[in-house]
Amino acid sequence: MGEERKEEEELVVPPLNFGMVDNGILRSGFPDSANFSFLQSLGLRSVLYLCPEPYPEANSEFLKDNGIQLFQFGIEMCKEPFVNIPEETIRQALKVILDGRNHPVLIHCKRGKHRTGCLVGCLRKLQRWCLSSVFDEYQRHAAAKARVSDQRFVELFDISSLKNLPFSFSSTIYSSNR
Amino acid sequence: MGEERKEEEELVVPPLNFGMVDNGILRSGFPDSANFSFLQSLGLRSVLYLCPEPYPEANSEFLKDNGIQLFQFGIEMCKEPFVNIPEETIRQALKVILDGRNHPVLIHCKRGKHRTGCLVGCLRKLQRWCLSSVFDEYQRHAAAKARVSDQRFVELFDISSLKNLPFSFSSTIYSSNR
Repeated sequence: MGEERKEEEELVVPPLNFGMVDNGILRSGFPDSANFSFLQSLGLRSVLYLCPEPYPEANSEFLKDNGIQLFQFGIEMCKEPFVNIPEETIRQALKVILDGRNHPVLIHCKRGKHRTGCLVGCLRKLQRWCLSSVFDEYQRHAAAKARVSDQRFVELFDISSLKNLPFSFSSTIYSSNR
Repeated sequence: MGEERKEEEELVVPPLNFGMVDNGILRSGFPDSANFSFLQSLGLRSVLYLCPEPYPEANSEFLKDNGIQLFQFGIEMCKEPFVNIPEETIRQALKVILDGRNHPVLIHCKRGKHRTGCLVGCLRKLQRWCLSSVFDEYQRHAAAKARVSDQRFVELFDISSLKNLPFSFSSTIYSSNR
């Protein structure tokens, strides 16, 4: 019984909608205190938070205690058909993600579906993924909440100004294309 | 026009249902020749194939040309309620995945939903993920085809004989729990 109890205590709780995007780049919904020990195990260097609301105190404290830097790019969430994803904000956020000094980085918004999905979609375009694969991944994380408007945003997003950035993904994955 | 054409040719096509499981561990549906240049960019060392059918010639050739080792663990696919996932086969497959010398390894079956989903689910149990997070991930990849029987298999799968394996994931991710 004591042994069983110990086993239970050892379980980790990844945040909802958690996934690996690439080496050193992770995504999820909003983490709460139940997720902290899992997040600790990731050895994060930074968190990229995509909502305009202030970061909750418990989360801020967790970041501070673990020496994790917070980058906040507040994107207002409008319900369809009033969608307004700011291109320039996504561009700035991409620069943070692409900088290996920030890895491992966890990208999150509220549910890890729309704002995070758009940002990851734009990253995939930079990685030269074809759009059907980009949308396949977007839909996997957005499920029943998938939005055509988000996918159109990703499709029309202009990567030309980012193409000459020095990529520094932490691994050889995809690197033969760079 | 010529420039645009060149851009198009540079696109890569990840296999359907492609995702990163952990550092050096990838998953997908069945890759076809359209995916080969993407797979090449991953620098794979091995492929773990979970269907009993012989590997298609074009795929075998691709692996041979790129020095990629094939591990095949044929699991018959039965429709519910006749489900029979062999525990021992999953155990052997897990040993291949956990061996860092095989990384990067791509796990795939036909759709990347059931067989691949069960195997990844068992891996998550070894990583001490709580079941709700394991199922969240399983369902993301299985979508409308999610099976309760697969999830029950993962829940009942006994990891005790694997706990003492020397893990050798390629990164620090999750390593603080080991």
